[in-house]
Amino acid sequence: MNYRMITYILGWILIFEAIFMTVPAITAVCYGESAILWFAVTAAICLAIGLLLTKIKKPQDKKLYSRDGYVIVSLSWIVLSVFGALPFFLSGEIPSYIDALFETVSGFTTTGASILSDVEKLSRSMLIWRSFTHWVGGMGVLVFIMAFVRLSGAQNMHIMKAESPGPSVSKLVPRVKTTALLLYAIYFVLTLAEFILLIAGGMTPFEALNTSFATAGTGGFGIYNTSIGGFSAYIQIVVIVFMLLFSVNFNSYFFLIKGKIKDALTSEVCIFFAIVAVSITIIAFNIRSMVGNLGEAFLDSSFAVSSIISTTGFSTVDFNPWPELSRTILVLLMFIGACAGSTGGGIKVSRIIILFKSLGKELLVMIHPNQVKKVKLGGRPVDHETVRSVSVFIVAYLLLFVASMVLISFDEHDLITNFTAVAATVNNIGPGLELVGPTANFGFFSVLSKIVLIFDMLAGRLELFPMLLLFTPATWKK
Amino acid sequence: MNYRMITYILGWILIFEAIFMTVPAITAVCYGESAILWFAVTAAICLAIGLLLTKIKKPQDKKLYSRDGYVIVSLSWIVLSVFGALPFFLSGEIPSYIDALFETVSGFTTTGASILSDVEKLSRSMLIWRSFTHWVGGMGVLVFIMAFVRLSGAQNMHIMKAESPGPSVSKLVPRVKTTALLLYAIYFVLTLAEFILLIAGGMTPFEALNTSFATAGTGGFGIYNTSIGGFSAYIQIVVIVFMLLFSVNFNSYFFLIKGKIKDALTSEVCIFFAIVAVSITIIAFNIRSMVGNLGEAFLDSSFAVSSIISTTGFSTVDFNPWPELSRTILVLLMFIGACAGSTGGGIKVSRIIILFKSLGKELLVMIHPNQVKKVKLGGRPVDHETVRSVSVFIVAYLLLFVASMVLISFDEHDLITNFTAVAATVNNIGPGLELVGPTANFGFFSVLSKIVLIFDMLAGRLELFPMLLLFTPATWKK
Repeated sequence: MNYRMITYILGWILIFEAIFMTVPAITAVCYGESAILWFAVTAAICLAIGLLLTKIKKPQDKKLYSRDGYVIVSLSWIVLSVFGALPFFLSGEIPSYIDALFETVSGFTTTGASILSDVEKLSRSMLIWRSFTHWVGGMGVLVFIMAFVRLSGAQNMHIMKAESPGPSVSKLVPRVKTTALLLYAIYFVLTLAEFILLIAGGMTPFEALNTSFATAGTGGFGIYNTSIGGFSAYIQIVVIVFMLLFSVNFNSYFFLIKGKIKDALTSEVCIFFAIVAVSITIIAFNIRSMVGNLGEAFLDSSFAVSSIISTTGFSTVDFNPWPELSRTILVLLMFIGACAGSTGGGIKVSRIIILFKSLGKELLVMIHPNQVKKVKLGGRPVDHETVRSVSVFIVAYLLLFVASMVLISFDEHDLITNFTAVAATVNNIGPGLELVGPTANFGFFSVLSKIVLIFDMLAGRLELFPMLLLFTPATWKK
Repeated sequence: MNYRMITYILGWILIFEAIFMTVPAITAVCYGESAILWFAVTAAICLAIGLLLTKIKKPQDKKLYSRDGYVIVSLSWIVLSVFGALPFFLSGEIPSYIDALFETVSGFTTTGASILSDVEKLSRSMLIWRSFTHWVGGMGVLVFIMAFVRLSGAQNMHIMKAESPGPSVSKLVPRVKTTALLLYAIYFVLTLAEFILLIAGGMTPFEALNTSFATAGTGGFGIYNTSIGGFSAYIQIVVIVFMLLFSVNFNSYFFLIKGKIKDALTSEVCIFFAIVAVSITIIAFNIRSMVGNLGEAFLDSSFAVSSIISTTGFSTVDFNPWPELSRTILVLLMFIGACAGSTGGGIKVSRIIILFKSLGKELLVMIHPNQVKKVKLGGRPVDHETVRSVSVFIVAYLLLFVASMVLISFDEHDLITNFTAVAATVNNIGPGLELVGPTANFGFFSVLSKIVLIFDMLAGRLELFPMLLLFTPATWKK
């Protein structure tokens, strides 16, 4: 294990966190809020430790092995959250540190599950910090750092692989740094577009900025207790469109810019939109009698489906009392999640496709044992390693899910609350059903359960293995 | 596809079903019940069609390919159930045919889920027929037939593989027919032992016979509305012991008879009993305050745990109002199920072990990408094909589960009812939670839902693939 290199990168993480703090600090200045003090204190702490770790002695050996990559990623996200929680806690706006940590992890992992019963009590600088963590976490912090800091070239891929969502990572251009910059450029432009469209719809700049940050990261922290429910149909439609846009593999936008429309419309993207369309239609007809008219039903259904499958977690109406068919479909969408290479969470559409295809292949092998078949995706064969890693991912996912369920069931809440609380955190969505429904929050859980759910949010965002390896003894053996 | 051979074996199935009918027929004679008529009519129909299919023209080409084996297995179980349901329906004791079919499939697949709200209304001959279907289904009907009818030697293994539970099938002795006979001998002796012990505890011969049949097949149909709840602690303990004994791989008994104790105590058996012991202890302490004293709590907990993990489904007390921790553990046990090669259902302990081990292996590969590791079970490496087939099984299992959940959610019952109804049928257990709890029944579901659950029971008992292949177009192509 290259400990020196790990602490070096963690140092950079802290320096960048200090820089991130300028966003809420400026907000505090604009609105004359006293919270500026706590952002300044936290930034100072981060900067001091960060400089200590990066400047005192530069690492001689820059070589990173696969396991170093995993450890760096998981520790970076933990460090980021541990320090990012300080302003909430120090200011007393979130009096319990574990709650502040939960909120921050929920922010960076773009989950959007909150422990706050009244979010409108928070100061504006705290609100923008919450939303900004979504934006930073959406594209990945290490990818961001790699866009600006020169690490040793060949090793970056280990880190990018460990942090990026989806079963396989492809570089758009030969250099990792340029790829990272390109992705962030697309991210920035899309966020800006949403911001402008929201302003055009009558949102204040503060509202529009928060909403854009939270949509871009598919996070879902709202700044009002009613989330997006209090805004006009226009605003709701803009948010629906952007929740879906941020669920698409960013590579597609890259190809779109290059004019390669065929490459942009991958089978994953097409199936994603097919799932969205079918779900919206079924739910709209299912809730029609509750809502009154079909137009309203389609708007509510579109918002809920887009919010859940993109794993954003915004809400306009409470879907908890919806009929069981609609609730069941929403729970399924929680697990499917967005496309690989987007800012969304969940199992990812491409993994689901690979699972279906490999099952179909196996059935054919049973019928014709002597035929050799390969799983194909978009015309090209999927290599054996990817198919196996998807199976392993599902197994790890199930075991983590089950273990979490057992641990939080000690709290003695109902099964649906427990089940959807784990589903909403491990898939980085936010709200679940029953006690953790769209109008509720996670504040009532015990400290043990909160720690379990914090772990699940991190594991879900980092696609399980970095967090699991952190607790595997063999990782730490020579 | 060798259609002639398929109808030939289906003919044998019907002849054996006619023979099976003698058991309820004799019961009807003993108790002077008029139901004898309907068993005689059904037996006559089965015999007539059976003789027609087997005797008119013997198949020239006895060759069976892999897919023929799967089709034979799934069609055999369907034919067996379709005709086995006739006495219930014709006698009017179960007025709806779909209900009669549900009850019969639930019997043969050893599920034990009932559509009857008052089982005590049934005549005694119908009760014994219900219980006897458990006994027949427990060890497998085709295995039974192979023990008596000479099929072409080498092809039998295809059928045995398709019908036997667990990730891999090993022949105990070189000949399939002798293996089948041996397994049935062990089965018969164990059933007899339970019968004698139950009689010794004060059960009537009728009660003891029904209970032994239902325990041996890990089925769970009770003959009283209170299941086993009305019997003494001694009877309950006997049933607990035999539910666990029938959950053990029958190969272990074979080795035990041969004096090879080390071979009998496989890691699967040890882990199975470890899971049982841990679950009983946690639940006993969890329900202690509800029950009153710890002794009683241990008895209730032992019964519920053994009943669920063995996938029998008998009950002594209603575990629906138990604390969430206990309910969560019981739901997990539903999925784990019994050992491979037993009469129990579920995913099977050996599959769970292989899943854990392959995950552990993958984590090690991530840490040391250049090391070559193999998954081991009981000291011997598990071949790659078995590991992959376990992954495929889990994927098929999840997809079937999700599809079933969506289809039955059209009935608009609560999520826990839907979830545990699917879990209780696909794992061949019987009772679930909420509306399908131990004191409830499956009668309220719509016809569509009943068909879905019938499919799930068959798919679960036959380990998914025979039923899935039946609906795969490629199976029927030339």
